[in-house]
Formats: sequence, structure tokens, C-alpha cells
Amino acid sequence: MTITAIKNAVTEVLPPVTPEAYRQGMSSLAAAVNVVTTNGPEGRAGFTATAVCSVSDNPATLLVCLNRSASVHQVFKNSTHLVINTLTSQHQSISNTFGGKAPMNERFQIGEWVESTTGCPRLADAAVSFDCIITDVKSVATHDVLFCQVVDITQDPEADALLYYQRGYHSAAITARVKTHN
Amino acid sequence: MTITAIKNAVTEVLPPVTPEAYRQGMSSLAAAVNVVTTNGPEGRAGFTATAVCSVSDNPATLLVCLNRSASVHQVFKNSTHLVINTLTSQHQSISNTFGGKAPMNERFQIGEWVESTTGCPRLADAAVSFDCIITDVKSVATHDVLFCQVVDITQDPEADALLYYQRGYHSAAITARVKTHN
Repeated sequence: MTITAIKNAVTEVLPPVTPEAYRQGMSSLAAAVNVVTTNGPEGRAGFTATAVCSVSDNPATLLVCLNRSASVHQVFKNSTHLVINTLTSQHQSISNTFGGKAPMNERFQIGEWVESTTGCPRLADAAVSFDCIITDVKSVATHDVLFCQVVDITQDPEADALLYYQRGYHSAAITARVKTHN
Repeated sequence: MTITAIKNAVTEVLPPVTPEAYRQGMSSLAAAVNVVTTNGPEGRAGFTATAVCSVSDNPATLLVCLNRSASVHQVFKNSTHLVINTLTSQHQSISNTFGGKAPMNERFQIGEWVESTTGCPRLADAAVSFDCIITDVKSVATHDVLFCQVVDITQDPEADALLYYQRGYHSAAITARVKTHN
């Protein structure tokens, strides 16, 4: 029996959990809040994302997951580059705006946006901004996974991180580091 | 000029940032700490991972990035399933052990491990454990991205999350939710 055959057999016996059960489980997995932006042939666009993670430091690569049914999907599909702007605890309104239903031209009216090296909107006071080339895309279930090579970074090492956890905003301050007990 | 040609042209002009610059930037992107475990043909194995993120709720899918040069890579490559155990603020020692150089049989001596539905080690008091079938793997740069369909979830909704941020441990308590200011 091949590995694939075993996998198929196991998957048949054990169906995936429901979307509701999955979202309830994910509420316990804390994540940084980011606004991902681009400036493609169709203009500026951006969306709030917690599904961002590191892939490799060489070459420097991050990934972002984007729902193919999202209003911004078409714009990003036609873009060659994007910026991952990691938000600070001062950016809850920006998170809500880019995660809501506001028209694209209204979203950039909140916050101070400058042009990144690749020509995308960069949030001037982000905790960190990763300026990226989109190098590959993989469709998985309802989402596209965008693989992004990092060509420039702007960072504020003093910023407090904005987190999403248990269906609400939290903050991680550098000064609040917990004691290590080994 | 095709999109691919444009991408190639832009990538040539803008090389990726150095591994050091990337790691410095990533220190501002807070992440939950997880221990990913399996029980493959080569026995039990586990590693500490912050590179875990949500892909889709239908079918429920997470991804995990694993360095192909990691000692555990071969075991996971031959496995059909894994558990993503999201740690609480009480689990720093487990994080350090599974993120260090300890031999595999010593790692599971710390913490209380039970058998998951798919037969993998599950941390009994994790914030949440996602029991998964590995459905696909994509190699990107130095890492493999493992796509994992979630077939069972065990959750402690009262647990405080363990975070890694600015090169140190932090904690997100449910009671510490920050005030929303729109």
C-alpha cells in the first residue's frame, strides 16, 4: 500500500471537522494582525490578514493566505508585488477598516501610507513592513497561498504588536516579556 | 511582456534581503508557539514551530513549515498525519525542549502526552490541539510546507497563549483583551 493510498484510506475514515468547529479551535491560536497591500494594474488594494507566516530566511520568504472569494482577490491575482504591514496596538481601526466592507478607495484614507520600494502602499508606522515580490501561488481548498520573496524591510523595533486571539484584540508589549522558567 | 517576465525583471533588480535582516524583521511579527508531533514508521517525533497558519475552514486546513535540514524532517516526510499542539504560557520548557537538540525519546518525557485520534502524541493540556492528515507538501526554498486537513480538535478555551515575539516569550491572557477604539 502506498503512502498516498494509506492517506486516502485514513481521510475516508476521518472526515474534516466542520467549519464552525475549526473556527472555534482557531480562536485559541493567537496571531499577529497584518494589512497586506498592493498596487496592481487595477490600483491600490489591501486586506487584513492573520494568515501570514515565515517560510524561509534564504531566500527570505513569507506566505500569505487569501480567500479566492474575497473582493480583493482579483487585484492581487494580477499583481507582481505586495507589502505585508504588521500592525501595532495603535492600529485597531486600520485592522477593522481593511477587514470590513469599506470600498477600496476609502480604506487608504485611514493611516499614513507611503510608497514602498516596489511601489505598493506601505503603512508608515507599522511594527514592520515586508516589501515583497510574489514568486509563486498555490491554490488550496478555498484559498490561494501567495509565496512572497522579501526585498525590503522597514521596522520600528519599539512598537507593541497587535494580536488577534479568542475573537478579540490583544497587545504584546516588548516590556511585558514573561519570565523564562526552565 | 508577460506577468512572469515582469516578475523576473523586478526580482533581478531587487534581490532578497539577507537572512540576518529577514530574521531581525521577523522578530516584530508575533506568533503563537506550537509543538508539532507525529508517530510515523520511525516512531514518535516532534518539533517547536511558530510557522503555523490557517488556510481554509472548508475543508478545515492548516499549514506548517518545516526546514528540510531539521533532524525531524525525514520522520515527518514519511508520516501521514500529525498533531499541531498550541502551547499555553505554562509550556515554555516544552517549547525549549522540542526546539532544542534533545534526542527524540527524551523530548516526550516532559509534559503529559496522550494518543490522538490519528495515533499521534497529543499534549493533554494544550491550548488547542489540531489532529490532522497531511494532504499535500510543497517545497519552497529551504522548507517544506505541509498542508494538513483537520479531523479532530481538543481545546481548553480558558488557557493563556504562549507567544514568541521580539526574541522572547510573551503571554496573551483572555482577560487581558485590549479596549477596542474605533
